Amino acid sequence: VKIAVLGIGQMGLVCSGILAARPSLSKRTDGEHEVVLWAHSAEEAGQLTQTRRSPRLAGFALPEAVRVTASMAEAVSAADLIVSAIPVQYIREAWQKAAAGVRDHAKGNGAGVLAGIVSVAKGIENRTLLRPTQIVAECLGDNPDSRPRPIAVLSGPTIAAELARCLPATMIAASEGLSEGGAHFSEEVQRLFATSWLRIYTSEDMLGVELAGAMKNVIAIAAGVLDGLQAGYNAKSALLARGLAEITRLGTAMGASQSTFFGLAGVGDLATTCFSPEGRNRSCGEALGRGEALADYLKRTTSVVEGVATTRSVVDLAKKYRVDMPITEAVHSVLFEGVDPIDAIGRLMSRELKRERVG
Amino acid sequence: VKIAVLGIGQMGLVCSGILAARPSLSKRTDGEHEVVLWAHSAEEAGQLTQTRRSPRLAGFALPEAVRVTASMAEAVSAADLIVSAIPVQYIREAWQKAAAGVRDHAKGNGAGVLAGIVSVAKGIENRTLLRPTQIVAECLGDNPDSRPRPIAVLSGPTIAAELARCLPATMIAASEGLSEGGAHFSEEVQRLFATSWLRIYTSEDMLGVELAGAMKNVIAIAAGVLDGLQAGYNAKSALLARGLAEITRLGTAMGASQSTFFGLAGVGDLATTCFSPEGRNRSCGEALGRGEALADYLKRTTSVVEGVATTRSVVDLAKKYRVDMPITEAVHSVLFEGVDPIDAIGRLMSRELKRERVG
Repeated sequence: VKIAVLGIGQMGLVCSGILAARPSLSKRTDGEHEVVLWAHSAEEAGQLTQTRRSPRLAGFALPEAVRVTASMAEAVSAADLIVSAIPVQYIREAWQKAAAGVRDHAKGNGAGVLAGIVSVAKGIENRTLLRPTQIVAECLGDNPDSRPRPIAVLSGPTIAAELARCLPATMIAASEGLSEGGAHFSEEVQRLFATSWLRIYTSEDMLGVELAGAMKNVIAIAAGVLDGLQAGYNAKSALLARGLAEITRLGTAMGASQSTFFGLAGVGDLATTCFSPEGRNRSCGEALGRGEALADYLKRTTSVVEGVATTRSVVDLAKKYRVDMPITEAVHSVLFEGVDPIDAIGRLMSRELKRERVG
Repeated sequence: VKIAVLGIGQMGLVCSGILAARPSLSKRTDGEHEVVLWAHSAEEAGQLTQTRRSPRLAGFALPEAVRVTASMAEAVSAADLIVSAIPVQYIREAWQKAAAGVRDHAKGNGAGVLAGIVSVAKGIENRTLLRPTQIVAECLGDNPDSRPRPIAVLSGPTIAAELARCLPATMIAASEGLSEGGAHFSEEVQRLFATSWLRIYTSEDMLGVELAGAMKNVIAIAAGVLDGLQAGYNAKSALLARGLAEITRLGTAMGASQSTFFGLAGVGDLATTCFSPEGRNRSCGEALGRGEALADYLKRTTSVVEGVATTRSVVDLAKKYRVDMPITEAVHSVLFEGVDPIDAIGRLMSRELKRERVG
């Protein structure tokens, strides 16, 4: 299979590594994959090609077989499968460039070849409030009456630094569309990415998987704030439970399946994001909890902190769907309204005693 | 209110400290509480009285106002409220002693005085497969036709070492019965225990709260095994999600409310138990993961590891209710069947790829 991976952030690197390092397990594709990795800057593409290392993911070595390019046309024009690993607020820009060169996967492009798009980004676009797969579809201008293009979301508790070390992990492959052979596209993706250390489950709730992946980053910022305040595991676990309740409320109000939020892509991803010291959203929150200004933190980090922009989008969605999201509101107040983290946490803890309400 | 706290384990100490340290917030009870703490051994009672310290909970100081006794009759005979903090496999023995002296709370014992029993233990009795409140009720020989005795469960993400330091935390107070004044007993318990740093929610699902508290200890042993194997946060978060799914399956099969498992007493407690380095069940699992024998670990620990005995009970319940619990089975195989932890984990990770099933 000819694969283009778009984006040289942590997940782009990790996916390139997984797909290039071994023959496919897919029944429909034998032999090695050919992986091209697209970088948004020619300078970084050059560095990656030469050093095979990235400041974004310590300890990771990009396999020699992966070709790195800064030319979008070169990356996508021959690709059967495109893995979109671009930070959410930049997806539109990148896919507008990609659109002209993308092959028409919906019509099939050769028997026995896996064809489609896999999205691994986690966030919601500001203003449009669209999910990654919706942005991609919009950029491709797909005709809603034609056969849907195979597109899947790959998500789950996957701190990239651990994937880079091949530590055991699980993911969810979710899709709604069918591949040209009639098999559920998520099952193709499952076989494509599964390794001895990476176990993949399938799901049909693409909406829920994308929403859960986006919203957990907001809760993780709050978890980091608690860490910065040295509040302890009990407080962080309470936050996880109450955070899960509020993202589930919004998700189900938007039509997602409740069970997705209680699965690997929901509570599983939320847990690793809130507890792993390597999580970027948690680390950002921790800096805020210690008293650092958001602008200063973002200046000194090499990675995009998806949860920051996504907090704006989730607050907008909560208003649109009239869902009460006190933790998300608190994160918004700390990030964008100058509220002191201690005051924000204090307000959450001193709300009126009441019955527990979940979902 | 005259309060007897039974048990000098971590939760018994912490509850004594919380209740003795401050005036009640309860509307129905003014002034200070009088707290008596029952210890199962005269020697330990003497040490606690003298030193106010316990090897079971580093850094904790028992308030001077708390009287410690090894006489069960002395502890319970004057008590309006009894807090049961005895390790689950020892509840029957202790409450059989207590039964004769316990006042008849069901009939009321003076206007305006909070009366009833609060259980904080987390486990399932071996062989009988009863929950803590069921064991207590059986020991008291309550007439099922008479007005139910007010009894509540207090549970949630509450690693005792953090409570001892007054770090922010949340709990669930769950009860089915009504107190003599007609108010829901859980609301009385809520007001009794709530402090500025401890937020308490109420629930009517006593069954679910007790089952979740018991079963999370089994999952925490598995989480500890992963820590011992240095498997990482992704693996542990996947375990948390899949563990939550299987304990929810058993809980709902037994008649508990699904939402309890997705709340503070469910996923919240599960998270802190799986991630806090101070959790006893997690620590036990970690020792096993590092290759230590169970018997050796139990010999060198000062606290009861509830999850070990409870694993037997949960496996029995899973059989009885015909629920598939692969993680609990794996823990059982490591604890009692001599299976190597690496093999047990490997078996879990290599099960056939499939769709995610939650609840």
